[in-house]
Amino acid sequence: MQHQEEEDDIQDFYHQPGEIPGQINIQEDAVKTQIRLVDYNETYLINKKDITPQQCGEFLDTQSVSWVDVQGLGSPEVIEELGRVFELNSLVLEDVVNMAERPKTEDYEDQLVIIARMVMPKPKGSGFYSEQVSFVLGKYYLLTIQEEPTRDCFEAVRHRIKHNRGIIRKHGADYLAYALLDSIVDGFFPVLERYGEKIEDLEQEVIIKPTPQTLRKIYKIRRQLLKLRRAIWPQRDVINSLIRDSGNLISDEVRLYLRDCYDHSIQVIDMVETYRELSSGLMDVYLSAVSNKMNEIMKFLTVMSSIFIPLTFIAGIYGMNFNTEKSPLNMPELNWYWGYPLCLGSMGAIAIGLLLIFKRRGWLDNASSLKDDNP
Amino acid sequence: MQHQEEEDDIQDFYHQPGEIPGQINIQEDAVKTQIRLVDYNETYLINKKDITPQQCGEFLDTQSVSWVDVQGLGSPEVIEELGRVFELNSLVLEDVVNMAERPKTEDYEDQLVIIARMVMPKPKGSGFYSEQVSFVLGKYYLLTIQEEPTRDCFEAVRHRIKHNRGIIRKHGADYLAYALLDSIVDGFFPVLERYGEKIEDLEQEVIIKPTPQTLRKIYKIRRQLLKLRRAIWPQRDVINSLIRDSGNLISDEVRLYLRDCYDHSIQVIDMVETYRELSSGLMDVYLSAVSNKMNEIMKFLTVMSSIFIPLTFIAGIYGMNFNTEKSPLNMPELNWYWGYPLCLGSMGAIAIGLLLIFKRRGWLDNASSLKDDNP
Amino acid sequence: MQHQEEEDDIQDFYHQPGEIPGQINIQEDAVKTQIRLVDYNETYLINKKDITPQQCGEFLDTQSVSWVDVQGLGSPEVIEELGRVFELNSLVLEDVVNMAERPKTEDYEDQLVIIARMVMPKPKGSGFYSEQVSFVLGKYYLLTIQEEPTRDCFEAVRHRIKHNRGIIRKHGADYLAYALLDSIVDGFFPVLERYGEKIEDLEQEVIIKPTPQTLRKIYKIRRQLLKLRRAIWPQRDVINSLIRDSGNLISDEVRLYLRDCYDHSIQVIDMVETYRELSSGLMDVYLSAVSNKMNEIMKFLTVMSSIFIPLTFIAGIYGMNFNTEKSPLNMPELNWYWGYPLCLGSMGAIAIGLLLIFKRRGWLDNASSLKDDNP
Amino acid sequence: MQHQEEEDDIQDFYHQPGEIPGQINIQEDAVKTQIRLVDYNETYLINKKDITPQQCGEFLDTQSVSWVDVQGLGSPEVIEELGRVFELNSLVLEDVVNMAERPKTEDYEDQLVIIARMVMPKPKGSGFYSEQVSFVLGKYYLLTIQEEPTRDCFEAVRHRIKHNRGIIRKHGADYLAYALLDSIVDGFFPVLERYGEKIEDLEQEVIIKPTPQTLRKIYKIRRQLLKLRRAIWPQRDVINSLIRDSGNLISDEVRLYLRDCYDHSIQVIDMVETYRELSSGLMDVYLSAVSNKMNEIMKFLTVMSSIFIPLTFIAGIYGMNFNTEKSPLNMPELNWYWGYPLCLGSMGAIAIGLLLIFKRRGWLDNASSLKDDNP
Amino acid sequence: MQHQEEEDDIQDFYHQPGEIPGQINIQEDAVKTQIRLVDYNETYLINKKDITPQQCGEFLDTQSVSWVDVQGLGSPEVIEELGRVFELNSLVLEDVVNMAERPKTEDYEDQLVIIARMVMPKPKGSGFYSEQVSFVLGKYYLLTIQEEPTRDCFEAVRHRIKHNRGIIRKHGADYLAYALLDSIVDGFFPVLERYGEKIEDLEQEVIIKPTPQTLRKIYKIRRQLLKLRRAIWPQRDVINSLIRDSGNLISDEVRLYLRDCYDHSIQVIDMVETYRELSSGLMDVYLSAVSNKMNEIMKFLTVMSSIFIPLTFIAGIYGMNFNTEKSPLNMPELNWYWGYPLCLGSMGAIAIGLLLIFKRRGWLDNASSLKDDNP
Repeated sequence: MQHQEEEDDIQDFYHQPGEIPGQINIQEDAVKTQIRLVDYNETYLINKKDITPQQCGEFLDTQSVSWVDVQGLGSPEVIEELGRVFELNSLVLEDVVNMAERPKTEDYEDQLVIIARMVMPKPKGSGFYSEQVSFVLGKYYLLTIQEEPTRDCFEAVRHRIKHNRGIIRKHGADYLAYALLDSIVDGFFPVLERYGEKIEDLEQEVIIKPTPQTLRKIYKIRRQLLKLRRAIWPQRDVINSLIRDSGNLISDEVRLYLRDCYDHSIQVIDMVETYRELSSGLMDVYLSAVSNKMNEIMKFLTVMSSIFIPLTFIAGIYGMNFNTEKSPLNMPELNWYWGYPLCLGSMGAIAIGLLLIFKRRGWLDNASSLKDDNP
Repeated sequence: MQHQEEEDDIQDFYHQPGEIPGQINIQEDAVKTQIRLVDYNETYLINKKDITPQQCGEFLDTQSVSWVDVQGLGSPEVIEELGRVFELNSLVLEDVVNMAERPKTEDYEDQLVIIARMVMPKPKGSGFYSEQVSFVLGKYYLLTIQEEPTRDCFEAVRHRIKHNRGIIRKHGADYLAYALLDSIVDGFFPVLERYGEKIEDLEQEVIIKPTPQTLRKIYKIRRQLLKLRRAIWPQRDVINSLIRDSGNLISDEVRLYLRDCYDHSIQVIDMVETYRELSSGLMDVYLSAVSNKMNEIMKFLTVMSSIFIPLTFIAGIYGMNFNTEKSPLNMPELNWYWGYPLCLGSMGAIAIGLLLIFKRRGWLDNASSLKDDNP
Repeated sequence: MQHQEEEDDIQDFYHQPGEIPGQINIQEDAVKTQIRLVDYNETYLINKKDITPQQCGEFLDTQSVSWVDVQGLGSPEVIEELGRVFELNSLVLEDVVNMAERPKTEDYEDQLVIIARMVMPKPKGSGFYSEQVSFVLGKYYLLTIQEEPTRDCFEAVRHRIKHNRGIIRKHGADYLAYALLDSIVDGFFPVLERYGEKIEDLEQEVIIKPTPQTLRKIYKIRRQLLKLRRAIWPQRDVINSLIRDSGNLISDEVRLYLRDCYDHSIQVIDMVETYRELSSGLMDVYLSAVSNKMNEIMKFLTVMSSIFIPLTFIAGIYGMNFNTEKSPLNMPELNWYWGYPLCLGSMGAIAIGLLLIFKRRGWLDNASSLKDDNP
Repeated sequence: MQHQEEEDDIQDFYHQPGEIPGQINIQEDAVKTQIRLVDYNETYLINKKDITPQQCGEFLDTQSVSWVDVQGLGSPEVIEELGRVFELNSLVLEDVVNMAERPKTEDYEDQLVIIARMVMPKPKGSGFYSEQVSFVLGKYYLLTIQEEPTRDCFEAVRHRIKHNRGIIRKHGADYLAYALLDSIVDGFFPVLERYGEKIEDLEQEVIIKPTPQTLRKIYKIRRQLLKLRRAIWPQRDVINSLIRDSGNLISDEVRLYLRDCYDHSIQVIDMVETYRELSSGLMDVYLSAVSNKMNEIMKFLTVMSSIFIPLTFIAGIYGMNFNTEKSPLNMPELNWYWGYPLCLGSMGAIAIGLLLIFKRRGWLDNASSLKDDNP
Repeated sequence: MQHQEEEDDIQDFYHQPGEIPGQINIQEDAVKTQIRLVDYNETYLINKKDITPQQCGEFLDTQSVSWVDVQGLGSPEVIEELGRVFELNSLVLEDVVNMAERPKTEDYEDQLVIIARMVMPKPKGSGFYSEQVSFVLGKYYLLTIQEEPTRDCFEAVRHRIKHNRGIIRKHGADYLAYALLDSIVDGFFPVLERYGEKIEDLEQEVIIKPTPQTLRKIYKIRRQLLKLRRAIWPQRDVINSLIRDSGNLISDEVRLYLRDCYDHSIQVIDMVETYRELSSGLMDVYLSAVSNKMNEIMKFLTVMSSIFIPLTFIAGIYGMNFNTEKSPLNMPELNWYWGYPLCLGSMGAIAIGLLLIFKRRGWLDNASSLKDDNP
């Protein structure tokens, strides 16, 4: 249902006034929690599915990198158990579970918490999925928590770990966190690409054939760009603060990579703002184009009416029933030999005269010619 | 009365030029002052209603947390007595009583004064109540002052204290102040949710069936979002300055909780600004939609007029009374055997020709089809 | 004359290029200078009118507070004498006399110069008076200079001094300066209140009955809010810089009071900006409302024209003069027994059919119904 | 030619890509260079015209103030010679000659270079001249370079030097630089005054009689205010940086005067921004006023059409030629005794009914009445 | 194809989510890589074409300046070899090859990497080429990398090196980098000049003869200015950070030249912003002008209709067939002696009356007269 779809576009999850801070509220439709573990260093790799938090606990203190990948938030007891195993602050747990937090980062003594927002284009239609991903980065582990188990943009990173591509297996958990963050930021590009294409289509449509549909599409794009913007701006700040003040959990080399990621986030912002300006310009163009179309319609009506109204008036004159026999002044034209031809002739002359006036005013131009024109 | 309701929307209480600073002006319709006291620590709880300021005084210096909850500002002598008991600066008293202060915080030596603004959705209709709440935080007490005794958003906190839920009974007065501030900030969400729903309704209405009513609704929402915005922006600054410079009355742990509250206030601001942009976009859409509707009307008029005007002209021609007997040139068609059918036939040809022109220009499309379309 | 009135709205006094700095230019219509002196401390009070600068000089070094209140700038020799008595810098004198300075503050060694702007609602009509007030604050004296002797917003302060209300007689010249500044800032509220009322009236007018008058009123309000804004913004900066860097002429206690005054100035700014946004929203509403009204007019025209144009065409058909005797094909209907009733019947059918079409399109709704609707 | 005039409004001189930095490009229409020297101290004054750079050189190291006033840039060899005499950096020379630099200041060891922009109202028409003035301030000399010899706004300063008015002869070259800068800043006021008057005229015109001319005038004002804005904003920064970081070439006393000049530049900016807001508001008003006018036209058309169309239809009915003899049902009204008066009467009744409807809708009001109204 | 052209206007190259950082992705249509070397000092000059990276390597450590100019990115093995020879970080190589980076600068220990964006006007049509140029500045060498071998804006610099013009041969690699950057910044001016001319043309067109074409042109200009803006803003920051924090690879003297280049970039930004404001103003003007034109059309229609509709009605009256023989009340006018002349006379009187009304309302003015008017 379309209305439903738009509804979750605009409304965020929101905090109940007065609720106890650090409390975990599971949403009704949440999916059962699944935990995947990838433990690796340069030479070895373990990959486990559907394990329990306790089982994870064994890997946390080994020097190999342990990526605990939690998907689905439907099992509060598992989440709480995770909180105990990873020694999470209750506020952190709340943020992780409430799926509408603003991207942010918080530095606890030996943990770095990052809340990020991941977008993915919907396979059909025009929208995109927007999902929160939380990171808890420790010295030798990375915990990631996401809501929806069926989709994310981390496959390429998993593939790089599995097949030992690039330098990911040579670095620690901080590099892994960077690689995932970078996937998230780069994940904005395919979504934006789609809006770029749409804006281009609309640019054609809005001038050549503006309809109320066009208007709705422009508004929808503006709205979704607003949503993207709300997701990417704080993300940029998160990355920036990771580069600047993230303590010793992030090595200097990874900081260098984060600068690259930061540049990408700026580029996303640049594109979002550009598209916003373009779509806002399109609204102006739309309004002007609708006025133009009205002008065209009015011109047609005016030309038609203005030509035939005087002619009809003349015809009306000679349709009057004044009695020609009572007076030689009463419509003697009706009895002239050339009466009818003269009448038709003067009508033609009037029509031609008016057409000339309209031509001089440019009201006879075919405005649709723009379609073939090379602007 | 509706006009009345809008009036108190826009107008603030204002300061009389030249009035003595620190003077208490009681508004005429103010309600009698009532004082409630909750005194608690982890193990014990006292709950008193309708007590006097002097009675409160006894609890202030005990190490248990004393929450003095003042409601209604109609009894100036009680207010002044409170001022004496709590040793309030006269400027503080003035701010507390003048119910249209901007949210702010001021740090007196051993007291922290916070002026906040609480919003609550009206049970019926579209507006919201907006009420000032003042906090005076001391080492072992919290004084809260609000105008209206019948409603506030503190019930959940009272419940947590009464039933010892969460950690509130384990902490001091600073945590209580945080819990109430958090209730106030989270209290913006239900109000915003309502506007979110309204904006969604208007998004449908504005394209499918724009009326002057729609315009009025959009303007009203913009206006109330403006009001919300004025309430939440300084609140964010208040919380931020509590986190940064609030002296030693607020413990480091509570400061951590306040950061969470700060995040919520940012989220409120985000939503307010998003809704403002959406409602401003709706105004553009409205204007375009009205133009569209005009186009549709004009197209109909133009099609009808342009088809029948030439036909009527032809009928007018053959309604002329030129005397066919005086000249063979005078409308001989009238006497032809096929005259009438030929005339009707040419009329039909003209009508079909014009319809084809209109079809090519797209003026015969039914613009209302958009209702069923999947955009 | 209205044009005249608007003229002094928009144009400032301006500096002649190349003129000698510190030069005093008296405007032609300036009023004769009058000097009032109030000298007081907690126990004694002297009140003198129409004295000379020299007479003032005697009071300056006594420890009682001397308020020298100069009104009218028409006597350059008095002004210059004042400059000598108070040892004013020539640039200060120029600023004091040129009545269109921007509010600012300058710190000379043992004098603090404050240029402020005072607004007062005009007794009739919609505008407000805007007048410059200059302060020169010394250790034991305050010199205030204003242009217009007949009105200011200092009466309440004079009353407090005379009748020893509040704490004004217990403090020094810095408190007096604060009390006057506070009067000036609070003086913006009654002016703003008026615009608040006007905006509310316009909100009704703009949707229900928009006329060119409405447009003019909206524009006028925007313009005057612009003027208010230019007056209050720098005033806020003045007060802020008084709080922060005003040397030892202002005591810490008065600084506390100035913070209160600063809060009021922020509140004025808040209201001005809100009203500006509202009035700018009103302009959008106006444009939409005018379009709406045009729609209504066009709908009426279209309904009337579209119904009668085809009917008139049919009547035109049967008004043709084809000769029914020459051919059985020539309008045999004219001679049918049921010809006329059938003709009228088909006309009625067409009219009803068109009305149904219009009804389905919603063109028969009465748009004015909004007046009684509860939005 | 008007087009020509607008062209130089918008286009700046621009730098050729890849050109050698510090190269002097003389524009083709440049005027022959003339040098004037004024050398003065408190007691003596020398005034020379048409001297050579070498002759100037002799005066530079004397302790009297030497003002070398260069006008016209058409003699590159003179310019280069000047560069040698004053030991100018090649980049400085380039900036001085390229007449479209942004105002800026640069601090070389014992020279201070200031690029300023001077505006002067055109004697006729609406525009203003905009010309670059460059200052090179040394310890005992000031070099000023301008493009156009026939006009500048320095006459008042020359007069003050010549007749020893004010304190200019008592101060050094830094005071002279201040005096000229102040002339330049104050020179914006007469230009702005003109736009203030124009905006006031347009305020009348735009509501009472909006024409396409009005639109063009508004656009032109906006454009020229944009140009003024580009000139004054960097100028303010220049003065500000002179006050703050200009080394020891500027004495503390002159710095005080520069603060006054800075205040004036802020005032200019204030006015420019206010006028920009007003003219942008005028554009909105224009659009609304045009829509209003269209409404008025449409109302007239609708009233005329809607009244006569039904009447003409009735007349058409009774113009039909149904044969009354063939059937008593065929238009018996034609043969009634009261037929014609009844017909006319019903027409009148319809017309009156429609007029009443229009009156109730307010379509008969004369919108032009606003001209006489007192808003 | 036009659509294609616009497509690459708006869409950037974008990063694949999850791709390995530092990976080189060659675009399919990339051109074969060519390397040019210019090695020079004040007295000697070597110029080599089509050499290999290894051959370049020999020149890097000599004290003469080596400019390695790489064009075309189609040969990944050459690029990688370059990376090895110049010891480039893998992230740098990625940035250099991905042709849609934002301008930025990064400081590696003994290398300074600058990503810049070069624009060049297209020889035909209205657009411009936009191409990334990367600089790697070492102590004795400068590596520049661009995508497209056939065009750049460095010819003037090459010419200056070859013919030893200016001071370029006397300075090091940092001066060369400055000279090229300056060419890039100055290369914005010819592109902007084109838009300046177009805006001027549109200013004429939009008021005198607005068509949908005009609308499209305005939108296109806004869009391309947006693109220019995105290119120049970060470039300014790059130059600024070079001036402020670029370590010891850039000498103080070159820093001075960079300040000049910085001024030019500010000037470009100024012009871009001015043109953006002007083109946004043009959109408003366009909308107003279209409304104006509609007014003109409606006035014509209204005048024509309003005059002839009553006349046609009168003619219709006397075309009715009331039987004058059955009653003396039935249209006796038809049998009057002066019937017909009286009828025509009253028609003429009505027409003249209506024309007078229209004249008073100003509906008969010829709005096109503005073309010849001197505004």
